[in-house]
Amino acid sequence: MLTFNMALKLVQDELKNLHFEQSPHSLFEPIEYILSLGGKRLRPVLSLLSCDLFGADPSLYVRPILGFEVFHNFTLLHDDLMDKASMRRNQPTVHKKWNNNTAILSGDAMLIAAYQLIAEVPDFCTKEINALFSKTAMEICAGQQYDMEFENRLDVTEADYLEMIRLKTAVLLACALQAGALLAKACPKDQASIYQFGINIGMAFQLQDDLLDVYGDPETFGKNIGGDILCDKKTFLYIKAYKGANTTQKAELDKWLGFSPKDPNQKISAITQIYNEMDLKKETEQLMNTYYQKAMSCLNELTVPAERSNLLRKIAQNLLNRHS
Amino acid sequence: MLTFNMALKLVQDELKNLHFEQSPHSLFEPIEYILSLGGKRLRPVLSLLSCDLFGADPSLYVRPILGFEVFHNFTLLHDDLMDKASMRRNQPTVHKKWNNNTAILSGDAMLIAAYQLIAEVPDFCTKEINALFSKTAMEICAGQQYDMEFENRLDVTEADYLEMIRLKTAVLLACALQAGALLAKACPKDQASIYQFGINIGMAFQLQDDLLDVYGDPETFGKNIGGDILCDKKTFLYIKAYKGANTTQKAELDKWLGFSPKDPNQKISAITQIYNEMDLKKETEQLMNTYYQKAMSCLNELTVPAERSNLLRKIAQNLLNRHS
Repeated sequence: MLTFNMALKLVQDELKNLHFEQSPHSLFEPIEYILSLGGKRLRPVLSLLSCDLFGADPSLYVRPILGFEVFHNFTLLHDDLMDKASMRRNQPTVHKKWNNNTAILSGDAMLIAAYQLIAEVPDFCTKEINALFSKTAMEICAGQQYDMEFENRLDVTEADYLEMIRLKTAVLLACALQAGALLAKACPKDQASIYQFGINIGMAFQLQDDLLDVYGDPETFGKNIGGDILCDKKTFLYIKAYKGANTTQKAELDKWLGFSPKDPNQKISAITQIYNEMDLKKETEQLMNTYYQKAMSCLNELTVPAERSNLLRKIAQNLLNRHS
Repeated sequence: MLTFNMALKLVQDELKNLHFEQSPHSLFEPIEYILSLGGKRLRPVLSLLSCDLFGADPSLYVRPILGFEVFHNFTLLHDDLMDKASMRRNQPTVHKKWNNNTAILSGDAMLIAAYQLIAEVPDFCTKEINALFSKTAMEICAGQQYDMEFENRLDVTEADYLEMIRLKTAVLLACALQAGALLAKACPKDQASIYQFGINIGMAFQLQDDLLDVYGDPETFGKNIGGDILCDKKTFLYIKAYKGANTTQKAELDKWLGFSPKDPNQKISAITQIYNEMDLKKETEQLMNTYYQKAMSCLNELTVPAERSNLLRKIAQNLLNRHS
């Protein structure tokens, strides 16, 4: 069976063979740039491991599966532009290094390139994987739209937030995992279980991301700490804080809302202090753990022997203990 | 056989049945808006007529063929944002009516929606039409990139320009026509001929567009006259003018380059006067006519009886005599 590192190596080697370099250079250079910035390559790795889990040879499908990584980076490129983010993985974002129009158009080309790669799956599953991918891509647009809208809303509920991160983050992990299962001709029940496994680790993964934005180590996180706080992002922590705040805390939250002080650290520490007072780190970790347990149940439902799915169990565990 | 108006009616009726209205409303409303602004619906109409020409029943494929119209409108949406255009078909553009982020994200969703529609073609041609569409979409991104780059360059040759409009405009007409042929299981030779017919009418069509930007009637054109001149767009007219200008004309062109006078009409009439002095309207019309003749030759090469392709002959002729 494939290990995590073997899958990652397959992905990294194939990424090196991906050449977008065509004319005009200025359209394709930003695509190679953002893909070269690294990242966990989690989506193609999970897809390969799922394919392996259900008994197919994943090395045959590395190139089409890279489509999920190209798509993921397309979303980062356009999201960074929409969120006006200046850094990504400790490097300038595409619209900062080039300009807004380049970010728009190279992003569009990346979305098309993702479709081109995914279209290289074998004929027996072309239609299903293409439909699954399009459905997922549309859900991710919806998730990003909710995410942006929530920044200007104060009535975002915990349920709204969880639905938003399901759309924005979880469905792509689930899609990549199900695509691996489709390539391996897994039965519909197993496909559904591995998809739900992806949803649940995706939810836990995003909650961890929200925590890292506040409590992460700037050295390893790759983005600026407190970015979510500065743009009034309605994260799980913020929603919980706003809902459960006492009068003093509520006044403090209201004071900072929509306000950008000269020294951004003032706002970051004030909000973080409220999170600490309310013990929201612990509450978020508990919710993460609930999703983690659900993810484990999904693996237990699979028709494959338990020892074959142990690797996914371990990966899920590591994702929850990550620092970046 | 299908007439132009019958094909247009099929397209318009099916467009009314297209409902993007899902949650979040704010993501899908701009899609319905831009599609509701009208337009010639040339791409799906040509695709249906091509399908009919080669003997299949086009009414079976209206919905997937609408994918080309949705894609075309996606390119308009993102191009308008990149070009900072404020009007489209006499109405505010999406980024003006909403904002830049909406234009980016609703555009992305439209590109995905186009893929979803096109994926509804029957299985026997899914792979080929999908590949043709992706290749075309990528070429169109390249065309838009060249178009933007040319605005800041003075060394754009006639050949550069013609390649740019081939990519930006002609390939989508050609793709829509070939897709119709693929749906009708036309032989590869006929597919190639109808594709080339599309390229040639596309070239003529874009040259006509450049002419209308200068010489069109503001009432019927739908955009502001002189838009290309104001943003120093390297149209066929401009390239010819810059290359053939005498000393006085050259000085005048240089004077206006990159300069936006308070009264934009000053710049528009000064440049138009040079075009008139050099008789460039006539020269552009001659080149249009060359492409028109090439398009006719492509139709003559088809293995179908000449009377079946007469409708496309007539449409090509009308396109060259259009006023909007």
